[in-house]
Amino acid sequence: MSAPIITLTTDYGLSDHLVGALKGVILRINPDAQIVDINHQVVPFDVLDGALSIGAAYPYFPPKTVHVVIVDPGVGAPRRPILVSAETQYFIAPDNGVLSLVYEREQGLTVRHITAEHYFLSPVSATFHGRDIFAPVAAWLSKTMQTASFGEEVSDYVRFVLPRPKIDGNVRKGVVLRVDRFGNLMTNFTWEDLPATLVSTGKIKLTVGGKLVQQLVQTFAQGAPGETVAILGSSGYIEISVNKGSAARALGVNRGAEVTLELA
Amino acid sequence: MSAPIITLTTDYGLSDHLVGALKGVILRINPDAQIVDINHQVVPFDVLDGALSIGAAYPYFPPKTVHVVIVDPGVGAPRRPILVSAETQYFIAPDNGVLSLVYEREQGLTVRHITAEHYFLSPVSATFHGRDIFAPVAAWLSKTMQTASFGEEVSDYVRFVLPRPKIDGNVRKGVVLRVDRFGNLMTNFTWEDLPATLVSTGKIKLTVGGKLVQQLVQTFAQGAPGETVAILGSSGYIEISVNKGSAARALGVNRGAEVTLELA
Amino acid sequence: MSAPIITLTTDYGLSDHLVGALKGVILRINPDAQIVDINHQVVPFDVLDGALSIGAAYPYFPPKTVHVVIVDPGVGAPRRPILVSAETQYFIAPDNGVLSLVYEREQGLTVRHITAEHYFLSPVSATFHGRDIFAPVAAWLSKTMQTASFGEEVSDYVRFVLPRPKIDGNVRKGVVLRVDRFGNLMTNFTWEDLPATLVSTGKIKLTVGGKLVQQLVQTFAQGAPGETVAILGSSGYIEISVNKGSAARALGVNRGAEVTLELA
Repeated sequence: MSAPIITLTTDYGLSDHLVGALKGVILRINPDAQIVDINHQVVPFDVLDGALSIGAAYPYFPPKTVHVVIVDPGVGAPRRPILVSAETQYFIAPDNGVLSLVYEREQGLTVRHITAEHYFLSPVSATFHGRDIFAPVAAWLSKTMQTASFGEEVSDYVRFVLPRPKIDGNVRKGVVLRVDRFGNLMTNFTWEDLPATLVSTGKIKLTVGGKLVQQLVQTFAQGAPGETVAILGSSGYIEISVNKGSAARALGVNRGAEVTLELA
Repeated sequence: MSAPIITLTTDYGLSDHLVGALKGVILRINPDAQIVDINHQVVPFDVLDGALSIGAAYPYFPPKTVHVVIVDPGVGAPRRPILVSAETQYFIAPDNGVLSLVYEREQGLTVRHITAEHYFLSPVSATFHGRDIFAPVAAWLSKTMQTASFGEEVSDYVRFVLPRPKIDGNVRKGVVLRVDRFGNLMTNFTWEDLPATLVSTGKIKLTVGGKLVQQLVQTFAQGAPGETVAILGSSGYIEISVNKGSAARALGVNRGAEVTLELA
Repeated sequence: MSAPIITLTTDYGLSDHLVGALKGVILRINPDAQIVDINHQVVPFDVLDGALSIGAAYPYFPPKTVHVVIVDPGVGAPRRPILVSAETQYFIAPDNGVLSLVYEREQGLTVRHITAEHYFLSPVSATFHGRDIFAPVAAWLSKTMQTASFGEEVSDYVRFVLPRPKIDGNVRKGVVLRVDRFGNLMTNFTWEDLPATLVSTGKIKLTVGGKLVQQLVQTFAQGAPGETVAILGSSGYIEISVNKGSAARALGVNRGAEVTLELA
């Protein structure tokens, strides 16, 4: 039997004790747990950024993995802690939409409102539910795998739909969802949003930050050094990239920037 | 039998091989050790910041955990490496006060000067005692749990007392101990430093960065968006916060800023 | 039997799902693997910085460790993925020189071109070979330890030689290879590059950033506070340091700066 896996995705950062305290709580309850950091530098309070991180990572984990996802601007307010059972994996998070990409992809979900307070640390602080609620619930779940003992099923959980590109006359308008460490711009265009003729010719007219991107490539290396190109990224979205450079810097844009695709 | 846990708290940062080398040394001596990162971004050379990190995290770890704490501005100078046995856990650190919060909270400590050089890597470098002394000692301790074999007890170990708010006429003067990733200001005021009448009414007069904070709340959400409030933080200190915003930015202050509480 | 160890050294950063996805892929194939982060903040696309990180960390790991090293500016281009068997450890990386320090130190290496596509995720993306090729190969290797099954031996693998200080008349000219978190400047001078008389007297004339460093010390503490000194660093290179301060800031220099040693 392999060790139960618990992953952590938070906006706690990596410069103080917060993540360490979570890990201590988990290991005190289940010393056999294998704790895996996914991302602790989600943009603070940014539920969409957290949703993108867990959404892109969880499909690669083995069955029975317990994912803890804490981006929780409403901590202390009466938003619910929830436990989601997907087909093979589990998710523990505040009920604020941070699991929306999980909801989008998984069939046959069960969502429970975590109410079984005897699993919580006591007292529960007003500001650190990661330590006092989410971590201990994850650790207990990884021991027992008895989801029903944590609370009743609910159906009115919070979910948002990722913004989709919109057709506007002759163009389709999308947005930069995030910028990665290399300066690649991840847009909300998927392969399906591109007319088939553009994909086959590789000639596009995509405008970002007032500049025109004209080439759709298969690999970074197809772009000339310094050239800005569009490419199908590894998470399924079209990305704007510069070969061995930063598209964010080259185009002077950041997250939230408008991306316009000419259709004709 | 669960794997022995060794935690790491350092100011080494996360941009080079330093932390990786520590982990290699530990695993070569004890391949069964479970290594847990608490914080590697302690402010460089800052013994107080390191003390706050380990002090806020260690109480949540299971018995027999070995905590390695390396904030070591005096590396290579004749400060002693020490091994501290608390009631249920162990601490390995330079003797420079970085364990002061452990000393404050734990009863019946034993502090040993680590002198058993046969546990060290050889040769010991002048600049990287984490790799050459602290990591191997932690790994050997996690295998044997024989603290006496590492050196003699000492009683003159270095400790400092966390700065406490001081009464000055009609006010109590404290300080911002640290700023977290969300911009919350952790002060050195505890709940006990607030007169009971202030706690019951929630009306206070706290001045930071020339601005007045007037509300003492139970949860972040009680503050109006953008309002600056005081709240009891999860580590036991009063924090200055802005609901879904950064108090550090709102007040233009940083670590070390004076905090003044009006008493009457 | 201890858990097989897989280390990760990448330039992926710590702010999104990339590292988490690698870990998921590994654990789905080998749930018993113990994953150890060495460094995920290698300077983006910087093969030399990656080579320095793995080169300084790997010697401390136990036999049979599998090291994954991904700094891969040519991802998607036809550079080869390789598997290197050193005397006791394994390395998986793109064939771009990022393992050059391993080649420099290890005897009797075998280098294989990884071609066994049945070990890869399917489909293989054009931009994320870490997830789709390197991580699954590492996980399968950690299960089977059968290197021959991954591909044929090659001898024309890419390696570079670390730039060495050059004699130029009366001086030897070197370079700052990297700057660490404390502002120490790691040069490419080794102990052997210093004339014996300089080492014995501790009097040197080293010029960096237009400023003269005159003292060669054994420990940081030998320098007066604020004084800039040269010291033998823990990785075997001469470093320029300021006791409890930042040499990078004091001298106003960064990586790549010239370092001149007067020989007479």
